[in-house]
Amino acid sequence: MTRVTLQVIAETLAVSTATVSLALRDSPVVAAETKERVQRLAAELGYVYNRSAASLRTARTNMVAVGFHDITNPYFAEVLAAVEDAAMAAGRTILLATYGESLERQARVLRTLREYRPDGMILCVAAGTQKEDLAPLLASGIPLTQLSRETAGVDLDFVGSDDAAGVGLAIDHLVGLGHRRIAMICGMDSYSTGRARRRGYCEGLAAHGIPLDPALMFPAYGTRENGLAAIQAALALPDPPTAAVCFNDLAAFGAMNGLRHLGREAGRDFSIVGCDDVAEAAQWFPALTTVRNRQDEMGRLAAQMLAARIREPGLPTRRVLLEPLLMVRASTAPLRERRVATA
Amino acid sequence: MTRVTLQVIAETLAVSTATVSLALRDSPVVAAETKERVQRLAAELGYVYNRSAASLRTARTNMVAVGFHDITNPYFAEVLAAVEDAAMAAGRTILLATYGESLERQARVLRTLREYRPDGMILCVAAGTQKEDLAPLLASGIPLTQLSRETAGVDLDFVGSDDAAGVGLAIDHLVGLGHRRIAMICGMDSYSTGRARRRGYCEGLAAHGIPLDPALMFPAYGTRENGLAAIQAALALPDPPTAAVCFNDLAAFGAMNGLRHLGREAGRDFSIVGCDDVAEAAQWFPALTTVRNRQDEMGRLAAQMLAARIREPGLPTRRVLLEPLLMVRASTAPLRERRVATA
Repeated sequence: MTRVTLQVIAETLAVSTATVSLALRDSPVVAAETKERVQRLAAELGYVYNRSAASLRTARTNMVAVGFHDITNPYFAEVLAAVEDAAMAAGRTILLATYGESLERQARVLRTLREYRPDGMILCVAAGTQKEDLAPLLASGIPLTQLSRETAGVDLDFVGSDDAAGVGLAIDHLVGLGHRRIAMICGMDSYSTGRARRRGYCEGLAAHGIPLDPALMFPAYGTRENGLAAIQAALALPDPPTAAVCFNDLAAFGAMNGLRHLGREAGRDFSIVGCDDVAEAAQWFPALTTVRNRQDEMGRLAAQMLAARIREPGLPTRRVLLEPLLMVRASTAPLRERRVATA
Repeated sequence: MTRVTLQVIAETLAVSTATVSLALRDSPVVAAETKERVQRLAAELGYVYNRSAASLRTARTNMVAVGFHDITNPYFAEVLAAVEDAAMAAGRTILLATYGESLERQARVLRTLREYRPDGMILCVAAGTQKEDLAPLLASGIPLTQLSRETAGVDLDFVGSDDAAGVGLAIDHLVGLGHRRIAMICGMDSYSTGRARRRGYCEGLAAHGIPLDPALMFPAYGTRENGLAAIQAALALPDPPTAAVCFNDLAAFGAMNGLRHLGREAGRDFSIVGCDDVAEAAQWFPALTTVRNRQDEMGRLAAQMLAARIREPGLPTRRVLLEPLLMVRASTAPLRERRVATA
């Protein structure tokens, strides 16, 4: 590849080097026709805009770092796709790293991501993250948006779901179908979505005058495997539940499978509600009744809030809770025979 | 944040600036105890290693660009997680961008990714990609590994599945169960996995002396929606199939749902085989018989092959086809009543 410079392109096309530079960055101030001529010639010449050098000049890297605990959970894959789409539309590329639920790996990942000097960072923290774990990040002053999971005591932009309200909708629906022995499957106190959904469960039951039975709560990470194990434990109880709210759709899928292993079926012998509404939910058999958590909107909003913060670091922090929707499908049904609660 | 330099850390800890620099990069040549002292002090001082500046000095950015057509397909989310894990273990971070099946967006994304000067790139191309579409990338000399989908006539490292063999296993299994009217659901000629799986279908039938019936092929992108539409079209034929091989698991899930809409069930009235073995496959009801395409291994190998290419650009190109495995589950069953083929 021949080494070419802005100068060569500028001279060839009889425009200024500033115009060439702006055209290569796809700036809206350059006329479309000029931009196309510059970009075509640049491509022919094999010219690659050097972002490393440019970032030292402008102190912008046009990268948004994304630190998520997990992307194999389809919920977060869908959120990530929305973040990437919105960032790309704004001329930024995603720098991605994951850490599972390991605080140690998260610390390492966040340090590494910062080294690339992204313009900002979108974060869904690992379980157990405390304010102190984010101290180096907060001290660095890098623009930051938290997504889905929120760290207590940290004054940062945040976009998530109104998780307590979402589970509240699920409880209202199940109680309306006649259920009173309702289990809470998965969810943990060590992250905010787990706490909020558990709170929604407790408050939802209380609102209907149903006493809380700790035996019906099965705290665990929201995985297919844990959902399956929890439903088996729940149905082995002396006075088993007739319905369950699950921390997320993955746990709900596991629970529906667990029912089948026991010769039972969601929507017939037992009612199951999920949380998230991933693409898979509407496709299950029976289709999963679940709380829609708007992953498209969440990802897009996170990217937009971060972009606003990068432009104006002094903006007041924003905390956006998206309103959940209950998607009633076929995994829930009226209680067939009423049981007398033991409590 | 106070502005600190390597010098300050070096003087405070009475070590050389070279040691500090290596310790901050987590170099194995620095004693673990020294590394910890340096890293702790650096963290306390809010020091962030500047990768932009470092990349101009070393011409390495420690970024691996990943261009995938889609990450909401769980297959590619799982592959991406494996790539990220392996890259992170080797000290590199993922720069991610997606483009759906749009050649225009792919061209833009690939140009943008190159501007960040990643050390290398892992690519799963959009449908319809020709050698010419990759010309700017090839001319740039950036180390590149193709994953899953392969571009004809391009001499690049590649890791994928032996897709024709995988579908061959599926055909053998279905024929062994007595099926002879076997549909091919989804898959397109415009990308290599589609072509190879279609070839596996044709060759598999031929190997069993079953004439090819073009009416039984339903080319389309491998989505849940297309799988559903295809099974409905297939069962509306005058001489419908009794089994189907699907291009991927998503299409298979859609097809299983389509059967239910028609009052039929996979594994009872009809046999369905998927391709990929995503996490969801074993959990469906009935659990999906499918071809395992080893996403963990594929992602890890792609990262490793790329790392080798970055270290030694002159290595001969490698083409690795992973051997698929048929996971026999509950969505396939012996043919109940034999039909006479119309062909």
